[in-house]
Amino acid sequence: MDAARAVSLSRQFKAIADPNRLRLVSLVSASPGSEACVCDLTEPLDLGQPTVSHHLKILVDAGILRREKRGVWAYYSLVPGALDALADVLTTRTGTGR
Amino acid sequence: MDAARAVSLSRQFKAIADPNRLRLVSLVSASPGSEACVCDLTEPLDLGQPTVSHHLKILVDAGILRREKRGVWAYYSLVPGALDALADVLTTRTGTGR
Repeated sequence: MDAARAVSLSRQFKAIADPNRLRLVSLVSASPGSEACVCDLTEPLDLGQPTVSHHLKILVDAGILRREKRGVWAYYSLVPGALDALADVLTTRTGTGR
Repeated sequence: MDAARAVSLSRQFKAIADPNRLRLVSLVSASPGSEACVCDLTEPLDLGQPTVSHHLKILVDAGILRREKRGVWAYYSLVPGALDALADVLTTRTGTGR
């Protein structure tokens, strides 16, 4: 694994290396249609909406979640393949050296 | 995913969410027998041995690598199943809610 790829991957791992963000990804992926409104994510985490929005933005900026505004609410879904790509780094033994 | 599990998982993700530590895991896993001497890990990373040992300790403390002293050198190998368990969190869509 060259240095540039390691830096890029570590940014994505950092984005999910937080208890609240892991739970957000979990909640989004378990939602109907793998999509959740920010309005549905505050109560399970027992956090205020500004805090939840802050964590969601980090996940969007890292390319893990995508955000779509519909009406007054923002809806979040998984970026297809993003988590699989990270998992692949962890499971492909020689692949980590690609 | 409950809060306690999210905290536990986030500790392991934090351990690998660093460019040098990602490269160390990559180097160890690609080594013959999936085991590497600390003496073989300094040159590829272009880091001093104290820095490499610091990063290796974080990976050992997180349960990702294990350390075995043989003679004057410490040898590092992957903890069986540790990376697979993290990958499983990322790929099992409903599993993140377990």
